[in-house]
Amino acid sequence: MLRIALAQLNYHVGNLVFNKKIILDKIHQAINQNVDLLVFSELALCGYPPLDLLNYNHFIENCYSDLKEIAMQCKNISVIIGAPTSNPDINGKNLFNSAVLIQNGEITDIRNKSLLPTYDIFDEYRWFEQNKSFACVNVKGVKIALTICEDLWNMDADPLYTNWPMNELVKESPSLMVNIAASPFDFNHEDERKNILRKNVATYNLPLVYVNQIGANTDFVFDGGSLAMNADGTIIKELDYFKEDFLIVEFDNNSKSFVADKKVNYETPSKISKINNALMLGIKDYFGKSGFKKAIVGLSGGIDSAVVLALAAEALGSENVHAVLMPSEFSSQHSIDDALCLVDKLKCSHEIVSIADIFNRYEAALGDSFKGTSFNVAEENIQSRIRGTLLMAISNKFGYILLNTSNKSELAVGYGTLYGDMNGGLSVIGDLYKTEVYELANYINRKSEIIPVNTITKAPSAELRPNQKDSDSLPDYDLLDAILFEYIEKTKSTQSIIQKLNNADVVTKVIKMVNANEWKRHQFAPIIRVSTKSFGRGRRMPIVAKYE
Amino acid sequence: MLRIALAQLNYHVGNLVFNKKIILDKIHQAINQNVDLLVFSELALCGYPPLDLLNYNHFIENCYSDLKEIAMQCKNISVIIGAPTSNPDINGKNLFNSAVLIQNGEITDIRNKSLLPTYDIFDEYRWFEQNKSFACVNVKGVKIALTICEDLWNMDADPLYTNWPMNELVKESPSLMVNIAASPFDFNHEDERKNILRKNVATYNLPLVYVNQIGANTDFVFDGGSLAMNADGTIIKELDYFKEDFLIVEFDNNSKSFVADKKVNYETPSKISKINNALMLGIKDYFGKSGFKKAIVGLSGGIDSAVVLALAAEALGSENVHAVLMPSEFSSQHSIDDALCLVDKLKCSHEIVSIADIFNRYEAALGDSFKGTSFNVAEENIQSRIRGTLLMAISNKFGYILLNTSNKSELAVGYGTLYGDMNGGLSVIGDLYKTEVYELANYINRKSEIIPVNTITKAPSAELRPNQKDSDSLPDYDLLDAILFEYIEKTKSTQSIIQKLNNADVVTKVIKMVNANEWKRHQFAPIIRVSTKSFGRGRRMPIVAKYE
Repeated sequence: MLRIALAQLNYHVGNLVFNKKIILDKIHQAINQNVDLLVFSELALCGYPPLDLLNYNHFIENCYSDLKEIAMQCKNISVIIGAPTSNPDINGKNLFNSAVLIQNGEITDIRNKSLLPTYDIFDEYRWFEQNKSFACVNVKGVKIALTICEDLWNMDADPLYTNWPMNELVKESPSLMVNIAASPFDFNHEDERKNILRKNVATYNLPLVYVNQIGANTDFVFDGGSLAMNADGTIIKELDYFKEDFLIVEFDNNSKSFVADKKVNYETPSKISKINNALMLGIKDYFGKSGFKKAIVGLSGGIDSAVVLALAAEALGSENVHAVLMPSEFSSQHSIDDALCLVDKLKCSHEIVSIADIFNRYEAALGDSFKGTSFNVAEENIQSRIRGTLLMAISNKFGYILLNTSNKSELAVGYGTLYGDMNGGLSVIGDLYKTEVYELANYINRKSEIIPVNTITKAPSAELRPNQKDSDSLPDYDLLDAILFEYIEKTKSTQSIIQKLNNADVVTKVIKMVNANEWKRHQFAPIIRVSTKSFGRGRRMPIVAKYE
Repeated sequence: MLRIALAQLNYHVGNLVFNKKIILDKIHQAINQNVDLLVFSELALCGYPPLDLLNYNHFIENCYSDLKEIAMQCKNISVIIGAPTSNPDINGKNLFNSAVLIQNGEITDIRNKSLLPTYDIFDEYRWFEQNKSFACVNVKGVKIALTICEDLWNMDADPLYTNWPMNELVKESPSLMVNIAASPFDFNHEDERKNILRKNVATYNLPLVYVNQIGANTDFVFDGGSLAMNADGTIIKELDYFKEDFLIVEFDNNSKSFVADKKVNYETPSKISKINNALMLGIKDYFGKSGFKKAIVGLSGGIDSAVVLALAAEALGSENVHAVLMPSEFSSQHSIDDALCLVDKLKCSHEIVSIADIFNRYEAALGDSFKGTSFNVAEENIQSRIRGTLLMAISNKFGYILLNTSNKSELAVGYGTLYGDMNGGLSVIGDLYKTEVYELANYINRKSEIIPVNTITKAPSAELRPNQKDSDSLPDYDLLDAILFEYIEKTKSTQSIIQKLNNADVVTKVIKMVNANEWKRHQFAPIIRVSTKSFGRGRRMPIVAKYE
């Protein structure tokens, strides 16, 4: 029997001291529990994604000296840790994305990642050389095919890579696959991941230990879901989601299978509850890992800021969240009432700062300049920028971090003011279409009414001119979001979207708006990613370009 | 004799209609001049970098149908054009970065890029599969080793790749190398490029036709410098820099050399004049290609905004540039005088909008909130954000694009206000350290005083509180820039920078500031890139991280 422990931890990018500490804690715990092999996830030592920290030689040197320090404490236990290592070959990139095997207090084997995801949010070939040599590792007589994340993912009908690491490793007749991962969350990812893992155990007729991480590093969220799976696809152990976890499985090398103590009956939660958990973790770790405690949110009475405030209050504690109401002459009474009702429910602190006087001063200062022109988007944006300036002023004065409240639909079509309501250090719901924001609001209200029903049911409005409604400028959100999904997530052409959804004029107009607003999104905050195609790092479109 | 024409053009990313037109124009010109082989640069058809436009199938299909349309017009001429093409193999990424050879009105050969730059500003492995099969092409009996940009660049002592495309192609004994490129400008790049090309002709004992492009696509600037070089390293023809150009060379297949009509005696211009030209082209193309005409600049009387205004006036014409002076109670008289003196010299329109009243209104509105606190960075930032809001208001009202005036030194240490003076659609001098901004100011004044000498000689100040100087918060710019260069360009560690520059406290403090301000730079405008390591696309550091 090989006792294998799966350590699913929350690493902090770049913070070697912290990561080393939580790794060593688990090593000591595992030693106490007579574990033979303890497995940590991909790039555990440096956190994921370390990005261009990998270009700093001293960072790589520090990783190596920490690995050696960790190794020295691994008496009577074997440990697999993900870390960057130097490529000994002068040719090719200088680094590998490695799984480091420590046995008897020494680094005995290093296995490197072959398939380097370089698409969407991933840039691994930016730093790492592709591995091209294959060998299993041995731990207490068990021959293990050790791979790293993407190495198991080339299972598509249209494969992204021209090689299959397991095809090579299986030639050595291993008893077990171990895969260490940094596999980020999106609301489809859990199902997709289990499908891929099942395909692998079936294809190679081998059981699998899969270790992922949890936690958020700015836009990346990791949801965990580490597991041990037998060759028949049965999940023997499944670790928690969105939480650190540590579990031990017994592997029988004769039967090449894990010993099942009881059947795992894990129910996949709903899409919206997963999104809710991912956003909470995203907020919590953004603050925790950057050393801030307190959030500030501009509260309009509309649904977007209400959802962000509710999430922040739950993630950070309502005593750490401050709401600012900034009514203008165009604000409706129900906006103020709904906002006050929400802060009352959440028990957040709040203040009210009117923007009317400041706005009048801007109008006076620009009087000569704007003479003979009529009220238009310039004046609308001034109001939004006054609010952005007030929020940043309070934030600067008292050390809050401003949470942004823009949603994906408005970011897509540019229905927001850069340097105004687009302000904020972190975008909480920037990867949720407006229709999903409504879903999430209802989910937040699942037990009791937190977000006022009126906020959910009333027609959305920016309230930047008299009687303004979103529907003055935008199609209905059901149609808008359907168009956006086809264009952004599915990369369909205008023509094929028109074929599917009709509404040629609307589709054409919407896609023009998406393309014309790349420059605004370029200057936007990082967005907590929950979908398969988030704005930001995952979608890199040219700014000064002409297309579609 | 093979008559070869080098077409060095200014392509617009994504704009297939425009690119096809300028390509066809040159094809007709070449046909009229009895050219045998006409060579365009890398990804000429779609512009460089097309980024995630490449993820849209219909974009690739449009490229292909445009290629076929171009081919039909290539009677009696052979043409090489860079374009994305589909990978016929189901395995691997779906695209190649290709050199398409058209002969007798048909696409006869497609050669694909082997070495895909994926570092700094480059992401080519994000979209393209690496070529692994090699064959020369034949044009009128001349055997040509046809490669694409980076394919010739694996010449370093620490090679980035494990293969050398020319090592394969040279086995077929070609007579000539042709390399098509999209090789972006930096102020060292011209020398580096010529060295690499000389190494190639020497290593393979072959002459070379090298075709680069010119023009700017947002942050990328291409400087041209296409050339024909004999195997002995002699440059026979060299095309212009920062300008479209078209030249014909005669290639003698018997002697395997170009016929030299006269000796090229090209003098490498100074670093600062190259930077000047790159920034002018960067501004010009940002406006031209995005369909805007008029720029607005906030003019403080300091050197940064003075340099940006002077560059914009020359790039766009002073009639298209509007300056806004926004004095506060802390503004000195010399600031206003210097600013007025400059607009007078440049003959730009200008207006003066005082921010004092608006600032007072903010203070009043925040009176309750800020009670008992003293004037600090919060109030300083309010002033900067009022200016940012005024500039955007005028910009929104009249259709200007706001040019940002931040320099690289202040971006590095976060000495600027996000949503304030960090506003703007394009950063003009964001890749120039403050010491380089001074150099550029003197260069701009090389013939006559345009930027007031007082602006150049006075101590820099943000003027956001009484008697403020940059030197209150920052070390002298000579030292600051030296530290920044070691840390950013040379990726040195704190320890090694201290060893080189002493000043342990200052070095440690500066590097902490650089690391702590990643979140601000993340929301910054695209920067015209002129150095080997610009902020933005070329330097991707984690935001919520702890390191150094």
